Amino acid sequence: MTDQLFYLDHAAATPVDERVLAVMTPYFSDRFYNPSSPYAPAIQVRRDYEEAKSRLATTFGAKGDDIIITAGATESINLAFVSTSGHIVTSAIEHDAVLAAAKLHDHTLVAPTEKGIVRPEAVAAAITPKTGLVSVQLANNEIGTIQPIRDIAAIVKQERKHRLDSDNHDPILLHCDASQGFGQIDVNVARLGVDMLTLNSGKMYGPKQVGLLWVRPGVQLAPMIVGGGQERGLRSGTENVAGVIGFARAAELAHEHQKSESARLHELRDFMQGELSNAFKQLVVSGHPKKHLPGSLHVSIPGLDAERIVFALEVRGVLLATGSACAANKGTRSHVLTAIGMSDAEADGSLRITLGRLSDKASVEQATAIIIEEITRELKRTGHA
Amino acid sequence: MTDQLFYLDHAAATPVDERVLAVMTPYFSDRFYNPSSPYAPAIQVRRDYEEAKSRLATTFGAKGDDIIITAGATESINLAFVSTSGHIVTSAIEHDAVLAAAKLHDHTLVAPTEKGIVRPEAVAAAITPKTGLVSVQLANNEIGTIQPIRDIAAIVKQERKHRLDSDNHDPILLHCDASQGFGQIDVNVARLGVDMLTLNSGKMYGPKQVGLLWVRPGVQLAPMIVGGGQERGLRSGTENVAGVIGFARAAELAHEHQKSESARLHELRDFMQGELSNAFKQLVVSGHPKKHLPGSLHVSIPGLDAERIVFALEVRGVLLATGSACAANKGTRSHVLTAIGMSDAEADGSLRITLGRLSDKASVEQATAIIIEEITRELKRTGHA
Repeated sequence: MTDQLFYLDHAAATPVDERVLAVMTPYFSDRFYNPSSPYAPAIQVRRDYEEAKSRLATTFGAKGDDIIITAGATESINLAFVSTSGHIVTSAIEHDAVLAAAKLHDHTLVAPTEKGIVRPEAVAAAITPKTGLVSVQLANNEIGTIQPIRDIAAIVKQERKHRLDSDNHDPILLHCDASQGFGQIDVNVARLGVDMLTLNSGKMYGPKQVGLLWVRPGVQLAPMIVGGGQERGLRSGTENVAGVIGFARAAELAHEHQKSESARLHELRDFMQGELSNAFKQLVVSGHPKKHLPGSLHVSIPGLDAERIVFALEVRGVLLATGSACAANKGTRSHVLTAIGMSDAEADGSLRITLGRLSDKASVEQATAIIIEEITRELKRTGHA
Repeated sequence: MTDQLFYLDHAAATPVDERVLAVMTPYFSDRFYNPSSPYAPAIQVRRDYEEAKSRLATTFGAKGDDIIITAGATESINLAFVSTSGHIVTSAIEHDAVLAAAKLHDHTLVAPTEKGIVRPEAVAAAITPKTGLVSVQLANNEIGTIQPIRDIAAIVKQERKHRLDSDNHDPILLHCDASQGFGQIDVNVARLGVDMLTLNSGKMYGPKQVGLLWVRPGVQLAPMIVGGGQERGLRSGTENVAGVIGFARAAELAHEHQKSESARLHELRDFMQGELSNAFKQLVVSGHPKKHLPGSLHVSIPGLDAERIVFALEVRGVLLATGSACAANKGTRSHVLTAIGMSDAEADGSLRITLGRLSDKASVEQATAIIIEEITRELKRTGHA
């Protein structure tokens, strides 16, 4: 394998930013105290922890007291779902964690449009008087589509008002899995109008296995993990001090540079789409032409064997995924691509390119040239070109 | 506050060993890949992760495939309990996580002896034909008592045989919370004879928020957190690669030096007990005189205000806890001390001293002298001496 690596899979994992690791490190060794211990150095650790939660919450317009720290987005999602006894409305293109948690309840999967948009009207149509939770992702992890959360929130509020008027006191809440997109697009709980929000440190250059569930004040939640009563009794276990200190710094950095990073990634992505479209007339770009994450590019060439391409590219240092990292590993087709109505030939010939901090102009240009070379070679080999 | 710190609270938290942090660090930055991604560097991360699980399991006589990585002992315990539908037998001196998880089921709390031992006969008497789980800790986190797990395992096996003979096919399992004691006493699943075992990285000089549940092959478990299907479907979420690499190294170091560390701590603790007993004739040492963790010393002086002493000691750099770190913080009396029949005056005058790697001869001697000075001063002040 070549020495230089071109990492084009930021949706799967992001490296911990060196500025994040720098602030975490002291909490592994010198400041290792249990935040529940009674002496001053431990009390200082407790303060640092609470202060980090507060800074973290501020990055998306919330308060530290209203977030529950978890071991990542999957746990956050499970926690959001465990308190619901009612029917669940979610979309067919959610992350596996949402789909698996929904399956434990009576639920309806809303089909997206062909461009991968979950229409508010479709959500409205799926809501029943028994619906307790609506869960829609901020942005799709495969095709990058940004969902109209604000409009879906309006639908949920309307249903809430309707219930109040008709003396139905069953609550209905809106949860948004915002694992993908933080640092690329605006994430603010008030502007989104959600009741619960999931964020994942491991997708924003923070440490892995750290996440949070924000819960609007007044919303009642039941714990999934019981014990010492940490996180206001909603998630027991000795606090992940180093992890949260890192998560907070990662969120601050992502929030601070969101606009410039968004513009930068947009330009790199559009360059890549242009080059690939020029090179391959049969190229299909999936997702919505405008409402997509700045760094996300999902392309398909019907008849191409994407798995072979991923391998050929890897040999040349270009690291990217076929359709979905999760689905690829299980040898099944992506449920997202099926849901947007993609043919099997197209789905099997699809590549997911997600740009991020490791992408700069020079490396994206080089990577694009390599991708074009390798696809061209493969199409020739199989007689497609 | 003084510059030098004497940390005598290893049961509450341990610093991450520098050798552990050194092996973890590359997995935050260079080797940050998602273990589920399809390209070679990610596949190498997957291999490193599985290999670390295997090395980790080896330290307590198990196989990597039989452990489920969690976010710590509290989650492990919750996971062990969630699969049980039957009655639960546990002891009155378990950690809060076990007691809270047990409360969600029909359960019986076995009272310990005055020395803090959970007698196998008492466990046998509490087992009913409906008992699905017996959970007893390896060693107590407050008074350090080591429990006769092997003998309790024999009781559970006997019950299992009895059920087989009487055509009762309801399973009965034994879970052991071994959060305290690893690295100080022998921990081996075969020798203990347990069906499930909880270990906590954060108590053995590894990173916090990493733990494991070992499950004997053949035992059926239900997941608590669903999603991408990681950890054989029993605990979803992107793997905590850095954490597990660190946990494995921490467990290896603890296992490797267990005998010498045990002898070293025993000597330091016995020195301390001798000095304190000489200085204060009214000193009560709790727990079992022989069956205790080498580094644990729980002492009480009836009438002493332990909270004042903890504060006075902290000013002089000696960090330790009253009765229990958890209970102290909640302003309630320790459930462990109540269960062993300690009077309120004795409980309120108790200190928990837990030695570990930060303890050496010189520092223990200094700390002991400071403790004696401060207790003497306080007893004089209050007219007790």
